[in-house]
Amino acid sequence: MIEIYTGNGKGKTTCAVGLVIRALGHGMKVCLVQFFKDKAYYGEQNILKKQKNLKMYSFTPKHPCFYKNVKQEFVKSECEKAVELIEKIFKEKSYNLLVLDEFNIALCGKFIDIKKIISLLEKRPKSMEVVITGRNAPKGLIKIADLVSEIKEIKHPYRKGVKCRKGIEY
Amino acid sequence: MIEIYTGNGKGKTTCAVGLVIRALGHGMKVCLVQFFKDKAYYGEQNILKKQKNLKMYSFTPKHPCFYKNVKQEFVKSECEKAVELIEKIFKEKSYNLLVLDEFNIALCGKFIDIKKIISLLEKRPKSMEVVITGRNAPKGLIKIADLVSEIKEIKHPYRKGVKCRKGIEY
Repeated sequence: MIEIYTGNGKGKTTCAVGLVIRALGHGMKVCLVQFFKDKAYYGEQNILKKQKNLKMYSFTPKHPCFYKNVKQEFVKSECEKAVELIEKIFKEKSYNLLVLDEFNIALCGKFIDIKKIISLLEKRPKSMEVVITGRNAPKGLIKIADLVSEIKEIKHPYRKGVKCRKGIEY
Repeated sequence: MIEIYTGNGKGKTTCAVGLVIRALGHGMKVCLVQFFKDKAYYGEQNILKKQKNLKMYSFTPKHPCFYKNVKQEFVKSECEKAVELIEKIFKEKSYNLLVLDEFNIALCGKFIDIKKIISLLEKRPKSMEVVITGRNAPKGLIKIADLVSEIKEIKHPYRKGVKCRKGIEY
């Protein structure tokens, strides 16, 4: 099945981490592919990297909107590599769960072609769960998904000027 | 700060698990208190129980709405014990993060008095992050929270009759 966690609230990547831990806890094989995430920054990485049965990949760790020296061409080339990896993962069928964290950001930024992805997702092994996170999930993706949770921000301390806190937001 | 994850969509407990893993990854001390959760059932327990710096408690593992032989009195007495534990945790100040998973269910089922809890939460150590999950978060709780994410169900496979799947839903 395809699961999507989208919306503007806190909890999408955090939920993906929970799903990874749950699947690993039942002995499943998991692949976590992250976009626009600086791995060294996030606390969860220190636990995740110790888990056997989990393979992690990171593409384009910085987003050009926040880092002016990150070139669009670099992001596009990273995303192309990521799509090739997903194709390989689908062919090899060696994972029970594939998580594409912040993938919606790559899609809505037009770094990856949504039509190509939908056609690729339709060819996925039916036994493999695919989890996609990130705000602004494209409509086409929501249409083919089996489960969609929208995480809405009702309140967030950054509205009051509180910055990201170690161990809590990262 | 107080964080609430509520709403009818999938991802509340999963998100709490992610938050626990993130905090542990940065060497923080975490306490996870769960309500209405049969620990042996959930995959994440197998990973969580191996983590040093994490202490777990479970109260009233079954909900009387789903298990007719679970008496209301038993649930109330379990919830009283849980509140005593929270009071103790606040006094001892030995955790950086306290997660009260499915606590909203205990509150909206009137097993715990909401006024008592709000007054208790206001006395928490200011350095301790408190995360509360469960659908139907009471208004009074939302009012005092610093962060509230509402996880809305847009699509869920159980609507098509798909039952909970091992490694995915539990």
